[in-house]
This record gives sequence, C-alpha cells and structure tokens, in this order.
Amino acid sequence: MSDNRAGGQLERLAFFSDAVFAIAITLLVIEVRMPELHAPTEESIRHALVELIPKYIGFIVSFFVIGRFWLGHHRLFGLLARTDDRMIIANLILLLGIAFIPFPTAVFSDYPGAQTAGLFYAGWLVVAGLFNRRLVKVAVRDHLLADDHDAGLRKHLLRGTWLPILIGLGAMGAALVHPLAVLGVLVLGPLLGSLALHVMRGRAKPAAE
Amino acid sequence: MSDNRAGGQLERLAFFSDAVFAIAITLLVIEVRMPELHAPTEESIRHALVELIPKYIGFIVSFFVIGRFWLGHHRLFGLLARTDDRMIIANLILLLGIAFIPFPTAVFSDYPGAQTAGLFYAGWLVVAGLFNRRLVKVAVRDHLLADDHDAGLRKHLLRGTWLPILIGLGAMGAALVHPLAVLGVLVLGPLLGSLALHVMRGRAKPAAE
Amino acid sequence: MSDNRAGGQLERLAFFSDAVFAIAITLLVIEVRMPELHAPTEESIRHALVELIPKYIGFIVSFFVIGRFWLGHHRLFGLLARTDDRMIIANLILLLGIAFIPFPTAVFSDYPGAQTAGLFYAGWLVVAGLFNRRLVKVAVRDHLLADDHDAGLRKHLLRGTWLPILIGLGAMGAALVHPLAVLGVLVLGPLLGSLALHVMRGRAKPAAE
Amino acid sequence: MSDNRAGGQLERLAFFSDAVFAIAITLLVIEVRMPELHAPTEESIRHALVELIPKYIGFIVSFFVIGRFWLGHHRLFGLLARTDDRMIIANLILLLGIAFIPFPTAVFSDYPGAQTAGLFYAGWLVVAGLFNRRLVKVAVRDHLLADDHDAGLRKHLLRGTWLPILIGLGAMGAALVHPLAVLGVLVLGPLLGSLALHVMRGRAKPAAE
Repeated sequence: MSDNRAGGQLERLAFFSDAVFAIAITLLVIEVRMPELHAPTEESIRHALVELIPKYIGFIVSFFVIGRFWLGHHRLFGLLARTDDRMIIANLILLLGIAFIPFPTAVFSDYPGAQTAGLFYAGWLVVAGLFNRRLVKVAVRDHLLADDHDAGLRKHLLRGTWLPILIGLGAMGAALVHPLAVLGVLVLGPLLGSLALHVMRGRAKPAAE
Repeated sequence: MSDNRAGGQLERLAFFSDAVFAIAITLLVIEVRMPELHAPTEESIRHALVELIPKYIGFIVSFFVIGRFWLGHHRLFGLLARTDDRMIIANLILLLGIAFIPFPTAVFSDYPGAQTAGLFYAGWLVVAGLFNRRLVKVAVRDHLLADDHDAGLRKHLLRGTWLPILIGLGAMGAALVHPLAVLGVLVLGPLLGSLALHVMRGRAKPAAE
Repeated sequence: MSDNRAGGQLERLAFFSDAVFAIAITLLVIEVRMPELHAPTEESIRHALVELIPKYIGFIVSFFVIGRFWLGHHRLFGLLARTDDRMIIANLILLLGIAFIPFPTAVFSDYPGAQTAGLFYAGWLVVAGLFNRRLVKVAVRDHLLADDHDAGLRKHLLRGTWLPILIGLGAMGAALVHPLAVLGVLVLGPLLGSLALHVMRGRAKPAAE
Repeated sequence: MSDNRAGGQLERLAFFSDAVFAIAITLLVIEVRMPELHAPTEESIRHALVELIPKYIGFIVSFFVIGRFWLGHHRLFGLLARTDDRMIIANLILLLGIAFIPFPTAVFSDYPGAQTAGLFYAGWLVVAGLFNRRLVKVAVRDHLLADDHDAGLRKHLLRGTWLPILIGLGAMGAALVHPLAVLGVLVLGPLLGSLALHVMRGRAKPAAE
C-alpha cells in the first residue's frame, strides 16, 4: 500500500474517531433534564434548576474527561505514520470505552451520594484508561509512529497513559472514603498529573525539543 | 513541528469542533416532542401542534444562536495558522458552552412565561459569549493568526466578541421586564449588532480590504 | 481571500452541513421505540413489533427524504467554487429545515391515520424544499459556481429544486384525500420526478455532457 | 468530471457515511438507562446495575457489529477510485441498515430471553449484510475500483460479504434453539469467519500481496 493511500486511511480513522468523541461529549447534555413540574412557579423552577447541580457537575467533569482522552488521541494520531489491523481494533475498543461514558456519568449524577455510583463511574474511567494505554502500546510496538520520533518520545507516550488510569484508581479509592471525593480527585488529578509528567519529562529529556 | 503537520492538527481541531457544533444544533430537535394524546382526534392533534409553538421558537432561536457561534468559529479558524495548548483548552471550554445550550433552551421553551427560565437561558448565552471571547483572545495573544493579518483585523475580531455577550446581557435585562422580551432581543440584537459592527469597521478601516 | 483559503472554507461548510444531515438522518431511529410491555410474552413482543410498522415506514421514508436532500446538496457543493455570507445563511436555513424533519416524522408516524399529521409532515417537506430552492438560487445568482459551468447547468439546477416542492405539495393534496396517500406520493413522486427531469434535461441539453 | 473532483466527491461520500456509522455506534448508549429507583440504597443501585447486564451486552455486541461493518466500508472505500449514482443509492441503503441497528439492539436487550427478539435482531443483521453485499457488488460491477486492483481482489471482496450474512443466518438459527445462543454466534462467528476467509484467501492468492 502506498504511503499516500495509508495517509488517507489514517485520516479517515482519525476522522471516525473524532466523530465518536464529538458525539459522546455532546450526548452528555441529554442526561441534564428538567423534572416535570406540575404547577410551575418562579420558585419551583428555580428550585428545580438548583436541584440539578449534580447533573451540571457530571456534565462538566465528563466533558473534560472525554475532552482529555480526545486530546491524547489527537496527539497520538499527529505522530502516527501508518495503521494496522491491531491498531484499528485497539482504537475501536477505546471508542467503546468513550461512547459508554454518558451512562456511568448518568448513574453518578443521579445518585451523587452513593458509593456504588462513585465506584462505578471511577471504575469505568479506569477501564477507559486501560483501553487507551492498550492503543498507545499497539502504536508503539507495531512501529506505527513516523520514523523521525525517537525512543524518548515513545517512552514518554507510554508513561503518559498511566495518568488517567492512576486518576481513575485514585477516584475509586476516594469513593470508598466519600462519594463526592471522587470529584476532588477528578478535578485535581489531571492538574497534579500534568505537572508530574512535565517534571518527569524535563528530567528525561533535558535537551531542547 | 513542521507547518504541514501543524496544519493537519489545526484541521482536525476545526473538524472536531464542527462536529460538536453540528451535533448540538441537531440535538435541539429532540426537545420538540408531542405529548401523548390518549384519544387522538384531528382537533386534539392540531391543538397539540399549536401548543408546541414555544418549542418551535426555542428550536429556531437556539439554532441561529449556535449557527452564529459556529460562523464566528468558522471565520476565526479560517484566519489561524497554528494552535497551541492554551487555544485547545479555550476551544474545549467554548464547545462545553455550546454543547450545553440544548438544556437552557429546553428550560426556556418549557416555561416560556417564567422570568427564571428567561434569565437562565439568556444568562447561559452570556457565559457562552464569554467563552467565545476567551478563545479569540487566546488566538490573538498567542500569535496564532496567519502572519499576513494586521493589527486592525485583530482589533476587529476582539471587538466582535462583545456582540454575543451584549446581546445576552440585553436579553437578561429584557427577561426582567417580560420573559418573552428575551426573544425580541435575541432576534433584533444580531441584526442591529451586525449593523453597528459594520459601521464601526467602516470607520476604523476606511481603506478597501 | 486566496482561492486556496476559499476552498478550505467551502470544504468546512460542506463538512458542517454533512454532519447535520448525517445526525438528522440517524436521529430518526430514536423515534422507533418499543412500548413498555408489562408481561412480555413471545406473542406480545411480536404484536408490539407489528404495531410499530408506521414507525418503520416513517423512518424509511424520512431517511430517503433527508438522503435525497443530502444528495442534492452534495451535488451542488461539487459545483461550487466559492461561498459568500448570503450563501452561508441560506445554507444554515436549509439545515434548520433538515434538522427539524425528525419531529414531523414522529407526528406522522404517531398518528398515521390523521389528516392533520399528514398535512403537517408534507407541509414541512414543502418548507424544506423552499429552503433548498433558496440555497440553489443564491448559489446561482451570486456566481458561486465554478466558472466552467454554463447557463444550461444553472437552469437545470434551478429547475430541479421544484421537484421536492412539487412532491411535497402533491403529498399535501394527497393528505386531504387520505392520510396514507401521503406515502404513495412520497414514494412514487421522486421516481416520476427524476424521470421527468431526465426527459426535460434531455430536451434542453441534446449535446453530450 | 475530472479525477480530482471525483476524488473530492468520493471523499465527501466516505465522510458522510463515516458520520452515520459514528452516530449510530454512539447512539447505542442511549438505550442503556437506569430504571428510576424510588428509594435508592447502595443495595438497590448495585442491583439495578447488575440487572442491566443484558443492556451492556447488547451495547457491546452491536458496537462491534457496527464497527465491523464500518471497517469493511472503510476498506472498500480505500480501494475505490470513483462513484456513480447506483453506488450512492446502494450506500444510502446500507446506511439505513446501519442507522436502524440501535432499535433491534434495544428489542433484543429488553427481552433477552425471547425468541422473537433474538430472531428480530439476528434477522436485521442479515438484512444489513445483504445491503452491504449489494454495495460491494455495485462497486465491483460498475468498475469503481482503482484500476490497479485485479480480479482476485474483486472476488475476495465479494466473497467476504457472505460473512456477515452467514453469521446473521447462524444467529437466527441459534435463536430457534435458545435466545441467548444468538450471542454465542455473534461473538464466535466473526472469529471463525475471519479465519476461514484468511485460509481461503491464502489458497486463492498464494503470491505475496
């Protein structure tokens, strides 16, 4: 297969993946729904809007969770030069992980005080994180990256895949302490994680990029 | 990173954003739903279709609100030469603002006579407008525009971002007077605003473009 | 604006439109839903599946209606060399017409025996047809077609936009006779119409293309 | 029509198709929904999550079914050099088959123990398989493949289209034995089928590709 055609197929794979990410991220809003108010007054509408706060939070947190996975996917595909069948399958499995996120989000924001809901939500993020790691692993192992990328980058990519997994595990642990602590981990985790990765990368690759 | 690759990444970002805009704009129709009629007659169906008029209006107004934001996004990206991380984040935050619009639309068209609903809807448009302004600001400040664009264009872009914010604020003010006045502002605002911008641009850039 | 950049903007407009068409066409399935069966038996499930036949028909007919509009859009954009603001607005209005189709489809397949529902559905197709005609008119009038297309093609394009409008009007007339006659017109209309257009084109452009 | 323009139209057709596949695959999650729990406890939430197992399975199986059809579509379009009207229609019909899958999936996972539901689901996969075969047939017969592909490839493509049809028929047969045997066929079928095709291809094309 010529390089040109390989590029076209790669682009279409990226495109299909982007569409799934975009749909999953936008479908999140479907879960945010007003209850039916039988005798709506200004007061009862205001009350209903306030009652939905867990829904808003679920929407926002999952929006950034999916957005973050998309960003990683976007960057990975920016480095790829070709695909193979194993990669296409691994990518499909990651997309399954992403497309499912609206459901655990709904469970979590329907029962924000329940440990089971927190564990289910955080647990699925671990699963999605593992699917993501698998995709990066296949890309690195099957030599799908463009040839001008060195071993340091490959290591950095693989190391970065631990971040969502660790954050998910941390959120599961937090759910055991208090259901809402899940949110704390999901909000602070990426910030601390990015910082840690940055420091680690700084040490591993002291030369200018 | 080569310019070619930067172009590819920029294109994929535009693509992902387009998909989110397109999904949000099309999901609006999900809110327009027939009530269940227990003994449907020609009369009761006609009545139900008429009762849904606030839903149609909500659909149409939000369709053009999202369409207008898309158009601005489309134009901004037509001027960009590169992206950076701050831009990607600012873009994701704007998309969150857009993806959420179906919810305030539903609230507003469920309770068209309620001040709370009007304020909530118009208020969210202000938020989305602020997210939009932030994106343009990042693009201008981080020098992401193609190099052949001058300071005049940059000022014009930034100034234009006040339009949706001012319209949203106007609509909030209108909601305090009468809930349905929100619609008047949202329909007339863009027309007057475009005119004003046009005049201002004419004065600022008297030379031919 | 350079031709290259104009091409990119045109492509993104086509892309955004495609996404809206694709979402509207796929959202149609959401209306096909099983009723809740309290004591499901093989018999009651079979019965429920049979009861949904009007829903299947609505899904299929609207799928081809949207598909047909998409095809026209696809062909029109294949002929364009540039866009302008009036075209972008006319395109957005057509997309509004398309994105709304799932709703009249639901009304029609919820009440397949009701004249009101048939008129509403067929009436909306007329509206969408008018929006479509407006888009083609703007494209032709504003000289947006690539320069190698002649007056004959322009006439042919404009004439073709009567087809969905006439079919819609025919379906409205049919609804006055019998609600289900709407389907007959929508299924036979495109076949006869394509034939008629083909014959007319044959007479207007006797030379080989 | 120039080759360049044909390529653009082909790309847009692939794009539109990709979007429909992506939306159908992501809409599957809408069917996975928590029942309303009137007095939610950790126990009742856990119970509800376990009760949804047929829904999870339906989601996963249909995700891979649609993913597999997408993959075949993706590969077919990678081989195409041009399209024609018959191909566009055949493609639209396949997309109808794909866009409908969320409905039989819902029926099957709502009534996982019912033969009717199993037959309906598996039956629709046969229909989608036939639509898929038709598309490949049109592509091969109308000489739409790039010219550098030989008769061996064409035969291989056509032969491959039997796979989803046979798996669907096998699943229908399985539904007659036991409703859940459908899943066994859908999970094992693709594995065995790929193996068989691989062996057959090995025998048919002993030379290196």
